[in-house]
Amino acid sequence: MIINAAQLCELLQGELIGDGDMKIYGPSQIDKGIPGTVTFLANPKYEEYAYTTDASILIVSRDFTPKSPLKASMIKVDDVYGAMMFLVEKFSKNGTPKPGISDLAQLPTDFAPAQDISIGAFTVIEKDVVIGARSIIYPHVFIGHGSQIGEDVVIYPGVRIYPNSMIGDRCIIHANAVIGCDGFGYRPDEKGQYIKINHVGRVILEEDVEIGANTVIDRGTLNFTKIGKGSKIDNLVQIAHNVTIGKHTVIAAQAGIAGSSSVGDHARVGGQVGVAGHIHIADRIEIQAQSGVHSGKYPEGTRLFGYPAIQYNDYLKSYAVFKQLPAYMKRIEELEKQIAALKADSQ
Amino acid sequence: MIINAAQLCELLQGELIGDGDMKIYGPSQIDKGIPGTVTFLANPKYEEYAYTTDASILIVSRDFTPKSPLKASMIKVDDVYGAMMFLVEKFSKNGTPKPGISDLAQLPTDFAPAQDISIGAFTVIEKDVVIGARSIIYPHVFIGHGSQIGEDVVIYPGVRIYPNSMIGDRCIIHANAVIGCDGFGYRPDEKGQYIKINHVGRVILEEDVEIGANTVIDRGTLNFTKIGKGSKIDNLVQIAHNVTIGKHTVIAAQAGIAGSSSVGDHARVGGQVGVAGHIHIADRIEIQAQSGVHSGKYPEGTRLFGYPAIQYNDYLKSYAVFKQLPAYMKRIEELEKQIAALKADSQ
Amino acid sequence: MIINAAQLCELLQGELIGDGDMKIYGPSQIDKGIPGTVTFLANPKYEEYAYTTDASILIVSRDFTPKSPLKASMIKVDDVYGAMMFLVEKFSKNGTPKPGISDLAQLPTDFAPAQDISIGAFTVIEKDVVIGARSIIYPHVFIGHGSQIGEDVVIYPGVRIYPNSMIGDRCIIHANAVIGCDGFGYRPDEKGQYIKINHVGRVILEEDVEIGANTVIDRGTLNFTKIGKGSKIDNLVQIAHNVTIGKHTVIAAQAGIAGSSSVGDHARVGGQVGVAGHIHIADRIEIQAQSGVHSGKYPEGTRLFGYPAIQYNDYLKSYAVFKQLPAYMKRIEELEKQIAALKADSQ
Repeated sequence: MIINAAQLCELLQGELIGDGDMKIYGPSQIDKGIPGTVTFLANPKYEEYAYTTDASILIVSRDFTPKSPLKASMIKVDDVYGAMMFLVEKFSKNGTPKPGISDLAQLPTDFAPAQDISIGAFTVIEKDVVIGARSIIYPHVFIGHGSQIGEDVVIYPGVRIYPNSMIGDRCIIHANAVIGCDGFGYRPDEKGQYIKINHVGRVILEEDVEIGANTVIDRGTLNFTKIGKGSKIDNLVQIAHNVTIGKHTVIAAQAGIAGSSSVGDHARVGGQVGVAGHIHIADRIEIQAQSGVHSGKYPEGTRLFGYPAIQYNDYLKSYAVFKQLPAYMKRIEELEKQIAALKADSQ
Repeated sequence: MIINAAQLCELLQGELIGDGDMKIYGPSQIDKGIPGTVTFLANPKYEEYAYTTDASILIVSRDFTPKSPLKASMIKVDDVYGAMMFLVEKFSKNGTPKPGISDLAQLPTDFAPAQDISIGAFTVIEKDVVIGARSIIYPHVFIGHGSQIGEDVVIYPGVRIYPNSMIGDRCIIHANAVIGCDGFGYRPDEKGQYIKINHVGRVILEEDVEIGANTVIDRGTLNFTKIGKGSKIDNLVQIAHNVTIGKHTVIAAQAGIAGSSSVGDHARVGGQVGVAGHIHIADRIEIQAQSGVHSGKYPEGTRLFGYPAIQYNDYLKSYAVFKQLPAYMKRIEELEKQIAALKADSQ
Repeated sequence: MIINAAQLCELLQGELIGDGDMKIYGPSQIDKGIPGTVTFLANPKYEEYAYTTDASILIVSRDFTPKSPLKASMIKVDDVYGAMMFLVEKFSKNGTPKPGISDLAQLPTDFAPAQDISIGAFTVIEKDVVIGARSIIYPHVFIGHGSQIGEDVVIYPGVRIYPNSMIGDRCIIHANAVIGCDGFGYRPDEKGQYIKINHVGRVILEEDVEIGANTVIDRGTLNFTKIGKGSKIDNLVQIAHNVTIGKHTVIAAQAGIAGSSSVGDHARVGGQVGVAGHIHIADRIEIQAQSGVHSGKYPEGTRLFGYPAIQYNDYLKSYAVFKQLPAYMKRIEELEKQIAALKADSQ
């Protein structure tokens, strides 16, 4: 959405002071305004930035009177904060693909499109795929046979969905994520050569899950890998085969959950965390970034840190000593000298 | 493959008891059965699940007689375990693209297809590419000029292969992996600005290599980056320029091997491990997840852990003390007090 | 570029001795030569390899006379090193897509191509996108509406650029990188369920930035995420929303910079490093691989290591003691025994 100040003013039912032709593509914060954006003076303590911001349009309250000339075009409105929320929502929806199926997509001949779905150019949908109403499949997506996509789902460009995956209603999957590839399962033969174990399970994303860009979720070996309702997974995360993630759990970027482990509900997994295979992480556990969790023994709500991870405060206390280890080492040496001297004296 | 109970029964030459129209898409474990799957009662100790499983079809032995009604349709067979192995193999092959070249792929005009290859829609193959017999190239793949793809190779959607790469027979490359992009090589000029070093080497995957989804393997600067025969690399792994990985080595998800290093044969590299540049990791070394290996001094078969990595048991012993460091610190302070008291006494 | 020895000889204005039909696809080092490559004897101390190399063509100085027969075809030139630099440059440019727009790309009807741009097959360009002169957009690229791509940019296959991104002149973006996806921002409601925060900011790459394969850069929430001029980012890196990276900074593979943090100019961030959110990393700071930086208190030029990161040398000194902790523990126990004995004696 590229609109000019006059159009924006009409949208907000405001009063325009300045150049009505000034064009903007989106919003910005007043202290970081750049040309081509609209910004907001909602909090009087930021007034100084009103005069210096590089944003093209400034939205202010009806009662605001500048003390010196503004560089930006100004739009006066009744409710600055409300106007901002309205515009952010509007900009975030803008440019979303319209319902319709591209002539350049490859679909099965018997594909039965649900109401108001959108399928972009160069997307490939294999047979026996069901896509729910109002879902948006961007260009360059691959959806393997037998997969079921819910309603109001958004799948960004380049997402690869292997066969038989299930994607719940209102899920969002970001660009180049891979859903349902084979798990890392092999058995060594007598020569130490690896024989591939067939993976025939599936991935299940329950409703309202969001998956980040370039994240990978392996299919189950025989059963499923599942992400619970409302959980959010950041970019570049690895979820191995047979893993179960609970509901309303968040997993930050570059974390990895090894095979057959599970994570409870409302847990918080930090960036670059590693969780070992075949363990269970209890509900509401919070794992500090980069930690390596090797044990499922910690109860609900524990905060973990370290490698291998222990209780957060215990790690910090040990690490505080770690940083002074050379000094402690000297104190031990000093003690040894003093004891030797005392022993010599007492003989 | 979506088939119903009657078809499945015929396939297994079994005896059907229940609804022949019940449709399934794949197998499941009996304790985790979900609708739309076929499950198996192979081990009598799981019999309780036979009555409660949500799987749609249950395969049992000829001599099994249920003690109470089943929810699932039942198929009796002579060899339950054999039937399971047969079906897992069958489901894993199912839906594989058939030989043929999509009209929607972009090929060089002089492309000479080998026998029974499959090339999917929207795949781009540049000039001077050779693809061996029976290889399957899914949709959305890019293969740069001069690359050589062996026989019986499988390349999943969205894989990008830069020019002059060599992919050995029976390799499998999962979705969105990138093979052969430029290494991270620059030289700083006198102002600290980075000048790109041209990369003209290639990537060589020997036979039977499997590469995970979203993994990246950089090309060599002048020579090659090579993955040895039978090695398996998980998702989201980084293999930098000029690296050599030996044969039958496994590298778990999110590990990274820095430039010009090498890893021996039959090694095991854990998830999120980092190996520094310009070192050699000996054969059969096992590196615990998240370790950072900075030295190539460890002999064949060593197990490593830590950051920087040391011998596994040494790290565990040191870490056991680390966890008690605050207590040890107090013991040092206590010793200092006692010595001071003894010295005072002895004066 | 596949050329034979005769053509190569003419290109270098050299003198050919051997088979003129011998074909090569690229260069190699003399000690690692493989068939199909041209190698170089520039340094006399490598002469032994001249007789054993598997390279197909060997370039030598005019005055070189082999002491025994060569396997390779030989080309004599005046300046071996100059010939090598010339060929590396030539091979690196070879096969680059020619200017032109593929009939198989999807462009807006009013798209106005700049001079000598190249757009590959199956690429999708949304409305209001501007692409500068001589830029190369490979196949399978997605560029969202309102994005601005500078001049002489190279965007490799499978790159996904979300709307309103700005890519500066001479940027290089490697395959399957994702630019501008939503940040990982949610607010929990009273039940601990996460409500998505709309992201309407953009990504700005200044001039001469290089982005590695499968790297992800999130858009700003309201403003921008910015990578400064000349900075180089390796593969599989995560740059979160609202981050600012300075100029001429390098970030190695699999590192992650959390939301709203900033990194200064000429900094060096090692592989798998994690930088916590909302901190500032000063100019010229060097962060050792795998470190976790939790604080922005370190001054310009500091070298950091550890988890949480401290000064490099301090970490090494503490870690040296860490490795001997079990021995120190025994020394403390020994001291305690000796003190107890001394106390018993003195009573």
